[in-house]
Formats: sequence, C-alpha cells, structure tokens
Amino acid sequence: MVCPTSDLCVGGCNLQAVEEGPINIGGLQQFATEVFRSMNVPQVRPVNQHNKNSAAKIALVGCGPASLSCATFLARLGYTDITIFEKENYVGGLSSSEIPQYRLPYDVVNFEIDMVKDLGVKVKTGRALSKHDLSIKGLEKEGYRAVFLGIGLPEPKIIPAFEGLTKEMGFYTSKSFLPSVAKGSKAGMCECRSALPSLQGSVVVLGAGDTAFDCATSALRCGAKKVFVVFRKGFRNIRAVPEEVELAQEEKCEFIPFQSPKQVILKENKIVAVEFYRTEQDENGRWIEDAEQITRLKANFIISAFGSGLYDLEVKDAMAPLRFSKWGLPEVDPNTMQTSESHVFCGGDLAGTSETTVESVNDGKTAAWFMHKYLQDLVGVKIPEEPQLPKFCTPIDDVDISVEMCGMKFINPFGLASAPPATSSAMIRRAFEAGWAFAVTKTFSLDKDLVTNVSPRIVRGTTSGHQYGPQQGSFLNIELISEKCCAYWCQSIAELKKDFPDKIVIASVMCSYSASDWTELCQRAETSGADALELNLSCPHGMGESGMGLACGQDPELVLNICRWVRAAIKIPFFIKITPNITDIVSIARAAYEGGADGVSAINTLSGLMGLKADASPWPAVGRDRLTTYGGVSGNAVRPVALRAVSAIASALPGFSIMGIGGIDSAEAGLQFLHCGASVLQIGSAIQNQDFTLIDDYITGLKALLYLKSLEHHSGWDGQSPPKAKHQRGKPVVVLQDIRNKKWPYFGHYQSLREEKISEIKKQADLLAENLKPPLRSCNEPTKPVPAVKNVIGQALPMIGPYKGLDNKQQVVALIDDDLCINCGKCYMACNDSGYQAITFDPETHIPTVTDDCTGCILCLSVCPIIDCISVVPRKIPHVINRGVPSFGYV
Amino acid sequence: MVCPTSDLCVGGCNLQAVEEGPINIGGLQQFATEVFRSMNVPQVRPVNQHNKNSAAKIALVGCGPASLSCATFLARLGYTDITIFEKENYVGGLSSSEIPQYRLPYDVVNFEIDMVKDLGVKVKTGRALSKHDLSIKGLEKEGYRAVFLGIGLPEPKIIPAFEGLTKEMGFYTSKSFLPSVAKGSKAGMCECRSALPSLQGSVVVLGAGDTAFDCATSALRCGAKKVFVVFRKGFRNIRAVPEEVELAQEEKCEFIPFQSPKQVILKENKIVAVEFYRTEQDENGRWIEDAEQITRLKANFIISAFGSGLYDLEVKDAMAPLRFSKWGLPEVDPNTMQTSESHVFCGGDLAGTSETTVESVNDGKTAAWFMHKYLQDLVGVKIPEEPQLPKFCTPIDDVDISVEMCGMKFINPFGLASAPPATSSAMIRRAFEAGWAFAVTKTFSLDKDLVTNVSPRIVRGTTSGHQYGPQQGSFLNIELISEKCCAYWCQSIAELKKDFPDKIVIASVMCSYSASDWTELCQRAETSGADALELNLSCPHGMGESGMGLACGQDPELVLNICRWVRAAIKIPFFIKITPNITDIVSIARAAYEGGADGVSAINTLSGLMGLKADASPWPAVGRDRLTTYGGVSGNAVRPVALRAVSAIASALPGFSIMGIGGIDSAEAGLQFLHCGASVLQIGSAIQNQDFTLIDDYITGLKALLYLKSLEHHSGWDGQSPPKAKHQRGKPVVVLQDIRNKKWPYFGHYQSLREEKISEIKKQADLLAENLKPPLRSCNEPTKPVPAVKNVIGQALPMIGPYKGLDNKQQVVALIDDDLCINCGKCYMACNDSGYQAITFDPETHIPTVTDDCTGCILCLSVCPIIDCISVVPRKIPHVINRGVPSFGYV
Repeated sequence: MVCPTSDLCVGGCNLQAVEEGPINIGGLQQFATEVFRSMNVPQVRPVNQHNKNSAAKIALVGCGPASLSCATFLARLGYTDITIFEKENYVGGLSSSEIPQYRLPYDVVNFEIDMVKDLGVKVKTGRALSKHDLSIKGLEKEGYRAVFLGIGLPEPKIIPAFEGLTKEMGFYTSKSFLPSVAKGSKAGMCECRSALPSLQGSVVVLGAGDTAFDCATSALRCGAKKVFVVFRKGFRNIRAVPEEVELAQEEKCEFIPFQSPKQVILKENKIVAVEFYRTEQDENGRWIEDAEQITRLKANFIISAFGSGLYDLEVKDAMAPLRFSKWGLPEVDPNTMQTSESHVFCGGDLAGTSETTVESVNDGKTAAWFMHKYLQDLVGVKIPEEPQLPKFCTPIDDVDISVEMCGMKFINPFGLASAPPATSSAMIRRAFEAGWAFAVTKTFSLDKDLVTNVSPRIVRGTTSGHQYGPQQGSFLNIELISEKCCAYWCQSIAELKKDFPDKIVIASVMCSYSASDWTELCQRAETSGADALELNLSCPHGMGESGMGLACGQDPELVLNICRWVRAAIKIPFFIKITPNITDIVSIARAAYEGGADGVSAINTLSGLMGLKADASPWPAVGRDRLTTYGGVSGNAVRPVALRAVSAIASALPGFSIMGIGGIDSAEAGLQFLHCGASVLQIGSAIQNQDFTLIDDYITGLKALLYLKSLEHHSGWDGQSPPKAKHQRGKPVVVLQDIRNKKWPYFGHYQSLREEKISEIKKQADLLAENLKPPLRSCNEPTKPVPAVKNVIGQALPMIGPYKGLDNKQQVVALIDDDLCINCGKCYMACNDSGYQAITFDPETHIPTVTDDCTGCILCLSVCPIIDCISVVPRKIPHVINRGVPSFGYV
Repeated sequence: MVCPTSDLCVGGCNLQAVEEGPINIGGLQQFATEVFRSMNVPQVRPVNQHNKNSAAKIALVGCGPASLSCATFLARLGYTDITIFEKENYVGGLSSSEIPQYRLPYDVVNFEIDMVKDLGVKVKTGRALSKHDLSIKGLEKEGYRAVFLGIGLPEPKIIPAFEGLTKEMGFYTSKSFLPSVAKGSKAGMCECRSALPSLQGSVVVLGAGDTAFDCATSALRCGAKKVFVVFRKGFRNIRAVPEEVELAQEEKCEFIPFQSPKQVILKENKIVAVEFYRTEQDENGRWIEDAEQITRLKANFIISAFGSGLYDLEVKDAMAPLRFSKWGLPEVDPNTMQTSESHVFCGGDLAGTSETTVESVNDGKTAAWFMHKYLQDLVGVKIPEEPQLPKFCTPIDDVDISVEMCGMKFINPFGLASAPPATSSAMIRRAFEAGWAFAVTKTFSLDKDLVTNVSPRIVRGTTSGHQYGPQQGSFLNIELISEKCCAYWCQSIAELKKDFPDKIVIASVMCSYSASDWTELCQRAETSGADALELNLSCPHGMGESGMGLACGQDPELVLNICRWVRAAIKIPFFIKITPNITDIVSIARAAYEGGADGVSAINTLSGLMGLKADASPWPAVGRDRLTTYGGVSGNAVRPVALRAVSAIASALPGFSIMGIGGIDSAEAGLQFLHCGASVLQIGSAIQNQDFTLIDDYITGLKALLYLKSLEHHSGWDGQSPPKAKHQRGKPVVVLQDIRNKKWPYFGHYQSLREEKISEIKKQADLLAENLKPPLRSCNEPTKPVPAVKNVIGQALPMIGPYKGLDNKQQVVALIDDDLCINCGKCYMACNDSGYQAITFDPETHIPTVTDDCTGCILCLSVCPIIDCISVVPRKIPHVINRGVPSFGYV
C-alpha cells in the first residue's frame, strides 16, 4: 500500500509491452492480504525449525517496520523470548505516526502487529533509549543476548532560514505535524482523543519526498485553503500518487519546482509570506540560486519536510559503546546489518540503508538471519551466509491432503496426465522435484507400433473468444502417442521409482485389439516397476485409424475383453482411460469394471475441429496442401463434459476408482472433480498454459479449501467470494440514497454527484469513532475436524440426479443489488432479447429493476459483470405461467 | 486522435465502475480506421438517394474539418457539383497547419481528404475570400446556389503587453509559429521544403489551451532547452495529454499557473525575461492580479497562444451582405448553421459554436442537412427538420449475402436458433425488425406434453476461466421446451409470415415416439404457414426422461421412422436437430436423409455439468435441497464439436442441407460453418451474451469477408491480422539492433535504453523525406468476382480428412520474431515443461531462442500473448526423431 511498486516489482514486470500492461502486483498483494485477514487464521511457527539456542533473550528497540520484520523472522526461526520496546504509547513506528490514514489505514498496521504477536513476540510501550531507561549496556546486563535497533530518525532537520520560527508563528516540521494528525485521525492507535491540528489560509510545504506530500494532503484535511509544495529541484524524483494529482486538479495543491527559500516574512509575529530564489543548473550541472529570478508567495503556515536525523545526545549515549559514522549514525555492515558491537544489529532509517518501508522491512529480514547466525554461533552451530528464511506459515500448511487409491498412497491428489508434460523421463523427474505426487507416462506401445508425429500439431483454443495469449480456455492437438520406444519407457519407469520411492508412476500403454500384444506390453510395464497401468483406449485422432485408441474404446465388448486379457497378465492395479466421444460413457466404465479393471481415467480429449481461417484453410494445417484432421480438445472448455462423465460413473459404480481429468486448472476445479467422485486428479492443459510450478498453488489451494470447511464462521463460503464488505474495484462501496429514496448510478455526471456526496459524508465523520477501531484479534479454532481428501470424494453425488427429481414448485427470482450495480445494462439487454422482458431500465439513470414477470431463469446473473450484484431469492408471489393464447387455464 | 475522448464518449461510458474501466473508444476507432485505410476500399455514394436538385452548384470556403464534413454529407445526399476553395496551397485547415505531426500525422488528414474526393468533391487551393477573388456575392453570380463558410479564425489575439514585439526580438504567436512548424515537419503537405523554426534557450508559452501545449512541445522540437507554459488561471481546464506529462517528467516543460504577464524585459532588442503578477480569486470569485506576489522568469522567446479572431476587413467585406454579431463573427443560427443570408451557412471556429475538431465536424454535418433542406425547398421538395444523414458507404455494402436452401430464399444466412431468444412471438418480431433473416421458434409440443420449468435454469459457463462478466465462453441451461401452448405458436407463425413475407419462419416441434402425435403436430405447424419444420430430437435434459428429445435422437432407427412419418404428413421441408452426445453423429444424419428429411440442424447442446461450488453444491441448484441435473452446454466452448459435426455430415452426405449451430458469435465464426458445409446459421448463446443488434455486425462482417476474397492484393489475409506494419499496443515497432547485432528486450532498464535509441533515431530523421509522403490513393477494383454465399459453402471440406492423409515428411519449426517478442517467457516455460526443451531463455535479456531440437508442435505459438510474434516455417534440417535408449535407429 505504501510501496513504490511502479518502480520496483511492477516496473520490472516482463509484461510491460503487452496491451494490458504489467501485472498490478501491489493491488493483487493487497487483495490477497485483505482476504486472508478476514479469514481470521493465525500465523504459526513453521514446523521442523531445530534451534539449539531458542531461549536466548532478544531485544528490539523501536516498534516500526524494521523491528517488526526482524522479530517475525527471529520467531519463525524458533526464538521464543523476543521483546520489542517502543518509546511511544502506540506501535507501528513511522507507519502509524507519519503515514496518513488514507494512505495506510491504522487497522492494516494493527493487523501486521497482531500477526507478529501470533508468534509470541512481546511488545512493551513507553520504553525508550535514555540514561533513565534502556541502553545497550543495560540490556546486556538484563541478559539480552542480541539487540536490534530500529528507532528511525526521530528529529527534524531545520535550515538556517527557518531557525527561531515557532508553532505559534505558524511553523511546523513534518515531525511535529504528522504525528498530531495521526493521533487525531487513527481510531484505536492510542488512547488519547486528540483533535486534528487547526490550519487556515495558505500553507507552504517545503520538500519533495513522500513526507512532503503527506504533509500537504494532511494540511488540506486540517483546514488549509491552499497548499504550495515547493522544492529545490525538478519533478524527476517526485512520485505523484493519484490522490495528489486529484488535488492538483481541484486547484487546492500547487507544486512549485526549482525554488530555494530566501526568507520568511513575519507580520505581528505571524508568518505572512515566503520569498524564493529560482534554482538552475549551470553548464557543469551544479545547482545555483539565481537572485534575478525570484518568486514571492503569501503564506500563513510553513511545514518544513526537509528530512530528519539523530541529534539527541542522550539517545546516542544510551547506544554506547557503538561506533558512529561521520553522518552521526551507527556504523552498520550493509550485508549483515551488524554494528560495531557483534551482538547489536540495526536497520531502517537509523541504519541509513533504506529509503522506503519495504527496504526497512528487508533490513529487518537481513538482520534476523545474521542475528540467528550470531546466536547459533554462541552454541557452536554453524549457519550459512546465504539467508534461508522460513516462509509464512498457518495451520493451513499442516493440512494432510494425501489420499489412498487401490492400495497406492498419493502424497497429494495432483499428477501429470499422459500428455505433453510427460513427454520424457527427464520432464517427469522435474515434475516430481516440483512436488507433483504422481505421473502417468506419455502413452507407449510395442516397437512395432512406433509412430512419427506431423507438425504443427498443438493449437490454441478459440473457445474463450477471439483473443490471443496465454490462459487459453482450451487446446486442440493432433499429437500421437510417444515417439519413444518401449525400452526407453521401461528403463525410465525403473529409474523414476528408484529415485522417487514416495511418488506413484503409472505407465500409459496402447495396443491394437490383440491379446498377445496387450499381454506382452503390460507385463513389460509391470516388470519395469510401474505402480499401475493406464490403458489408453481413447486417443481420438490418428491411432484409431490403426485400430488402436478410440477404435478399442467405443465398444463395451472390446473393452471387456481387453480388460480380461490385462487382468490375466498382471497383478498391479490398472485403469482404462475412456473417451467422451460416445453415447453412453457409463457402459464403457461398466465393461472395464466387469473385465477386472481397478478403475477408469475420465476423460480423454473431446474430438473436434478448432477452427478455420477466413480463406477456408484449417489450423493446424499440415504440409503444402494445408490438410488437417479432427483433433482432441482439452482444457477447461471440456470440463463440463468431464464433470458429467466422472459423476455419472461414480454414481453408477460406487467404489470403482476414478482418476479425474479434463480442464482441471486450479485447486478449486480439482475439488469439483473430487466432489464428483474422482480420487486423484490428472493435469495436462493447465501445465501447457504455465509450467510445473502450478503444483504449489494447487497444494496450498486444496489445503485451504479443506481447512475452511472446518471453520464454523466460514460455513457460507463457496470458495470464491471473500467475506468482505461490498466492494468495487477493490474498494468498499459507500451505500448512498438521496432524499427521494432513489439510488445513485455510477456513470457520467451521477459519478461526480456520488463523489461529492461521499466526500461530504467523510468530512462529517468522527475520525476517532469507536466503531472505526480495529477489532480485537480472534483467530477461531476449527470447530469441526479438517476433512481428509477421502471424506470429500463423491460429496456432490446426492445432489446430481434426473430432471424429474427437481421441484418446479420451489421457484426463484432475480434480485439486483443497487449498491453494486454499475448501470451497464447487460441484464436488461439479455432479459429483453433472450428472456422474459422482466427487467426495466431507466433511460435517465440506467438503473435496472426486476419486475413480477421474472421467471427465475437467471440469465441476467449469468451475464452480469459484477460479482454478487445479482442473486437469486425464493419467489414469493404465485407462479402463473403464461401459456399464450388461447388461455385454456393450464398450470 | 485529437478528440478529448475522456470527456466525451469515454467519459460517458457505462463501464466506468468495472475493474477494467471504460471502453477505449478513441483507440478502437483509430484502429478500425487504420485497418480500413490499409484495405484500400473507396467511399461510395449510398444508393437510393433521390435528389431532385442534385446538380445544384455548391461552394465551401476553407478546406478544414467543418467544410470537409459538410461536403461529405452533401455528396452522400446526392449533390454532384461541390467545390471546396482553400486559401493556402495545402488542405486540411487547422488540422494540417496547427496540430503537430506527432498528434495528428499529415497522412491521416490526407486520407480523410481522399475519402471526400472519392465522392467527387472538387478541391481548389490558392483561392481566398477577398475583393480580388471569392465573395458571397461573386459566388452567387457564378451560379452557386448554396455556400458554406468554414475559414476558421485566421488572426491571432495580441495583448497590450506584447504590442510591438517582433519575430526578430523572439516573439511569435501560435498563428505564425505552428504553420511554420507544420511546413517543416509534414511530408507531402505542401510542395515547399521549409526548415523548422530555430529556437534556443528558454521559451515562455502563454495560454492554457491545446494550442499552447502544441506550441510548447513543438518549441522543444525546434531547439528550445526549456519551455514554460504560463497561464492565468488554474489547472482545472487543462488537459494534460500523455506526451506533455512525459515532458514534464523530463523537466523540459514546466507548467506555471496563476500568472498574468506584467512586462517583457528586452536587452539589445532581444527578449531576456518576463515578469508576472500572481492571480487569485477574491471572496466573490473575481480574478485579481496581486502586485505583492510576483514572479520573474528568464526567457529568450515568447509564443503567445491567447486565441484568435477575425479582424481583416477585406475578408469581412467579401462576406457582405452577412450580418455580424457583437463579437465580430457572422450571425449564425446554432440549430441550422444558417447565416442571415438564407443560402449561406457557416461552421467551425468562424461560427463560434465549436471548441474542438469534433464539434467543427458536427457543425458541418448540421449545415449539410439544412443546406439540403434549403436546396430541396427551391425545387419544391419538403425535407423534415430532424436530420437523417446517410451513413458511410463502400462497395462492401453492396455485397449480396442472400442464400437459397431447399427452395427457401434467406436474405442473409443469420437467424435465431430455437432457444431463449425465440421464447415468444414478440421477440421474433423484434428480431426480424432488427435484420435477422429467419427464426426457428422455441420448440413446442402438443398440449398434452406441456411443460413447466424449474428455476434457476441458465448459468454462465466457467469454460473461459474463473472470471465473471459478459462475453461468456459458454452457458449451461436446464430449460425445457416452450411453456406456451400449440395454438399460441400456430397463431404466432401465421401472424409473423403475414407481417414479414420475406423472412423465413421455421417451427421447432417435439413429440414422443408416436406416429399419430408427430403427424398431428407437424400438420398443425404446416397449416399455420411455417416455411419449414425443425424436429427437436436432441434436447439433452428433462425431455429425454419423458421419452422425447434426446431419447428419440440417439437411435438411427427411431430417427428413420420419425422422419418417414413426418415426410408422409407434410409437404414443406423439414430438418432434424441432432445431438452431439453420440458416438457417430453421421449415422443419425444418414437416418434422417433416408427417412426423407431435407436436412439437419447441427448441433444441439452438449450434455454437461458446469460446475460445483466449494461446498459441493451444484449450480444451478434447484430448491432447498440444492439439486441439479445434467444440462446443455452452448456457446463457443462447443464450437470445435459443432464444426466437426457439420463438416463430417457435409462430407458424408453431399447436397443434404445443414443449418449450422454451436458457438457462432461473429461473422468470421459463421463463415467457418459455411466453409464446413452449412447453408444457413442459427445463433443462440451470442444473443444471450448481448442482444439482437448483433445482426448488424454479422451482416457487415460477412459482406466484408466475402468482398476481401475478390481483391488480389489481400490474397494473404486470413480475416484476422490487418495488413499493418509490425505493431505493439497499436503503435509501429521500431526495429533496433545494437552493435553486437543483438536484439533489445522490452522490459526494465532495456526499455529505457530502447526509448533513448528511438528518440535518437527520430532526432536524426529528415521529417520531409520523400518516403514519408502519404502514398497516392489507389482503390483497387476487385480482380475476381465477389463470391456469393453458395460459392463458399463446403469450401474447407477437401482439407479435412483422415490422419493418415497428413504428411509427416513435411515438418515445420517455430520462428520467433525478436522485434515483436516482449520477453515474457511463456514460450520457454511451455516448451520446457510441456514440450521438447527446444527454446532457450537468456537469463539476462529474457530473449528466447528456438534450437534445432524444435519438433514443430507449436505449443509455443499457442501460448504466446503477441499476435504474429511466433510463426511456423518449413523445417530445413533433417528430422531425426529421438526414440530414447536403446537406440535401434528407428526413423
């Protein structure tokens, strides 16, 4: 929220040059954090942190970003006696005292501190470096084995022209002005109830940093009529945050570059004006003040924001025996954050190494590692130079997502489908290293059936529209089975099983309709050490023409016989991979079951023709004649067909194992397949769209979805909508009603009216009101056990049945939330031309209204671009169907 | 390109409040115009403009936006003797002479003028209003029956403080400065080869309008080291275009508000400085100059951009006997643009009614209508007050897209599918009025089979990912057939045929497997006047459980018998709507053919389960128990299945008619179905996503796609990529190579290096170079006849065949275009984890390189986010397949 993301992460993003521009990394982080915060899940110490000096007492002085970060990582590393001391009676350092509420709300800072406390870190306020209280030597005497100093720079710099000016004359520094603004505007920060400072007339703010802008915008909120932000050099180093640009457009805040203060004019001991010289660079690039170019501005107040330093000798004395640099700050090794005393570390503004909050946080991280190294050294444990800091952990990380199927133990339900990501042994190896639990090899055959591919053969799907780019809704391929020989795969399987004993390797095999071929191939695969086999009876292109794949898999009798041959040949479990290109998929699964198979993999790709160009040529087009053949469609376009197949088979054959395949591209999609009856999940197209690192998201996602089922207060969650207040573009929606009890639309001049109204409400608000205080942290313990994967398998089946089981007496209607509606008219258009003309649309305000004609088809909800804007509610008036003329009174 | 879109169209957009923000209307218009321009298709006069006074001579004075617009609409209204007179020896008015090249390139202006000339408008340069040349009275004498004045405001306003200043002292006005910049920077504008004006040092531009900014940015391009834009009031009315903000960040251009010029300081007859008073508003809102707040700036040049007027008495005399207003401009009725002389009209800056180019263009439009009204009045024809101006027309509008099928004449191939958009007679009526050629009614039955729907029953597809919003990749519905009775539909069909005799009405009907039911229902539908019937043998949900729909359509024998019953019962053509939920779709089509059907509609929806929520509940969920049933998936997710079905049936049964259905959502998708063998096209989901107005796009789109097939110079077009230079984010890509012959990436610090390099290249460029002149307009005539719809039906079929027909000797490999590559790494990731590890990725520059290991699978192309960045080229080195160990030397 306060990070210059456009210079850092977003500035370095590889997507600068695409139409949509770089990824909004800061916004995504904020969204994710806010959702997590509302989940009320605590931070916990990572398991397996072996720390031989965990009881060492550690003190951190100053409770700002650097110390909070340092304490967090020390706690994660296993230290149990950590105390942060803070001079003020509030915590958060500069984040609380200087950054204004509208840039960094206090409850966000408070949440960060709560998460540090989750780890057992103690925070003591009203304790400062001084001869009467804390000192480096005193802390050592009290038994603190390591100390971190993160007190920032407490005092303002004053230029000679401003010496002798007082608050009564109208003179502030950022160090005196901003904390008093914070105390008057941050509910819950401290117990005092302070008013905002009172300003009026013109205010001149001097300086060009973030602090100067914070002073400027705060000054306007404190009553200034006009603010001038005046600075010595140009705009180059100035970051215009949107708030400021807006103020400039309102003409309340004016930026005046290239000005150096010459003198302040007083009248009756009050500031009335300031005179400046213009600054310019000479031929050699030196900055000079030009007495011939002058500017004189009227001013009632001056706020000097020229930076800060450490000047108080008493504080410096308390730091003895630290060595100080020529700038008056402790000497610090920038690689370790260690001071001249080996047990004392330092970070943030005081160390002089950081300019932003995120850099201070990094100082704290670095210091934590080298404090750990120092403390372990004391007990004889050697720690490497390269930091290996433990990641953020919650109880979600401890959820067990292993699952057993046919006697095989899967460490998680996610594996590679027999598809391009399993093209070679080396790729499967890398997938295992990345965390995938199992792999089905690319299908191989006896060497007499070896194939050679054509090219091109994998094309993007056009099923999400006409756009280009990654995140394809589907792919179509005309790739055959593996081009590699049987011996290659048998050797690979043996090596993979040897090197990854806890991973499951399933061999995918294919023959034509021949008992001896199937027997030979399956026995070779079993001998190689495969945990199970998958018989590919479903490849929709190419192989069928050779009597293989689909040619064997569309006839229940052939399937039955092949399964009998294989069952007779091998002992290990086997599955058949079945095709969706069939009238009755359950009949094929039943034949496999009767033939002795242990389960099915459902589904293979859907046969299709992805598309043609406008010159009638197909894509992919092979050779000069641009010929093509029907290929296999995969990806989330086929997911509805796959979910149908999995649930139908699971309902028809309870206990028969299913490996789910078909458009699984997230943990949430995977959970749907589990709910439909699959035991493990095969992934193909999603990896094509990204890479093997997806597994991290899938594991964390599934753990979170299962964990949330154990929490009573999230019982309404559907896995998508966060439990946030109504929001738009990430910001909470302010509910407005005018005196006629009408809603306010979101476009054109209504938008301005809405903004004026909101600004009025804000002005009248009591900034310190009780209800604005951050709530006390309450991380609820699970009230129910966290379900295991086996507990959720098939959970949706009772809800999927025949149409006649649905009750046409329990009707619903659509309900539009006017606070969320953006007045786009999509619901009106859809209802009018594809529905029941049951939504009216106000031509003036563009507000839609659902009428009594609504039949609850909910097409409106389906086209609405705003999440949660349209919902369904039970119908309350009688449901009379319009049967048309003549009216015979049908019901 | 010069329109304040953020205030106008974009500002009024209904999508202000969505995550993505309002639609980039200006950008889309520019893109569309540029693509059209490169198509080299001329503007033509609309047909059917009956004009009884078409030979009336019309003169327009001044060849700027207002006159060009006025002349265009007069020509479209049918006038054939139109002449524009222009004072300068170049055309375009202020668009050429004052708006800088980088904001509005001259070739864009030139293209606009070419399009006016397409309509036969004559342009004469070197002709001005003056006593020696043109005058209102003189034009009347020469037989001009109507005159339009659009000469703009030719002379600058000069404030008293600047009187007596000369160009030699360093003083320009925008009226003297900008045209000389234009002449030096716009290749092809005029025959002279002028240098740019030469400036240096500091330049003060006075004024706050667009013109002031144009002066400022031009001044920098003419050698100024620094520019101050100084203006009297605040920023409120200033529009910071991106170019300017960028310059401000580079510290070359500084904006100084609230300053009023007090005096200019000269030294040796050269300007050296300017002094200003600060302006402020007093309590009553009046602007005052405050002598106590002063600013002095050094300056070498002043450019005054305080607006312009009409002062030249000779010009005014030539306008006699027009009446003038108190501001010295012709009196004009703002509703008609008529002056005090009934045959003289006026628009643009001269009329004082417009502030922007788009408003001037609108003046010209308004004037054109009322000049038409005036001229028609002269020959006794009454024209209404409300303007009805003819739209832009090209030969594309004349393309015939009608098609015949089974003796029925369709005015275009697009109609409503039997789906929610055909729920009622009133909706079909509105669709016909909107331009749809035919409609298949929502399926109806005999009254004994009447149904009642459940709710909810139509849900959004999740097949494009997890996003919300319109433009769904699919829908799933569990809606049954029509709830309306048979009599309603028979009466509706009769009324529709009576009121829309040129539209085709097809009745969709359904019965269970009963000869008498089918006979009765089909005869009732035939008697009502339906042009044809569609037998719904494919509804995948609900109806099947009652022995209807799918229950009849998955067995060729039942289909054969039903068709025989219907054939015996009726004379009109009939089709069966077939299901894709079947092993062999061709067998059903063949049964229909053998049973006497005239064709098939392919396909109905695909059976599926769209998804579950994380709590295992399905969606749609009916009733308190949240039950669901398998529904029908529609929309472009099913298009690959539909294209396969249509092409397979067309290949197997030549001459058997097909109505194509399944994810048609554009003219281009429709053409794919025609190419696969469909004769007409049914639309459903796309209308659900939008409304009936789609038909306009489909008609224009199909006409354009067919027309382009007739042009030799577009023979390479595939209907998607425009014939533009390589571009990124809409702008041409500058090809750069550094000295080591390496490419330059597009992110981080490389982006800055790239921008510096491009700026250097631009600085060295000869702005008037011959190759920068706009090319002479050459609108090629079609070299081949424009194909009719019947000519393209089935055109792709010869290219779709068995896998064995594909040549695995003709292999391809991927080729990455480094100039377009944005260094995102998607191709590398996909190739690495889902392919052949055949792309390397430079860790420093992020430049990907295809190696000899490429097997041409083209997954890389499929995930690349940049259109045309990766292409396929024939493989040149031998294709040796890696069969893995042991190497038996397979090929």
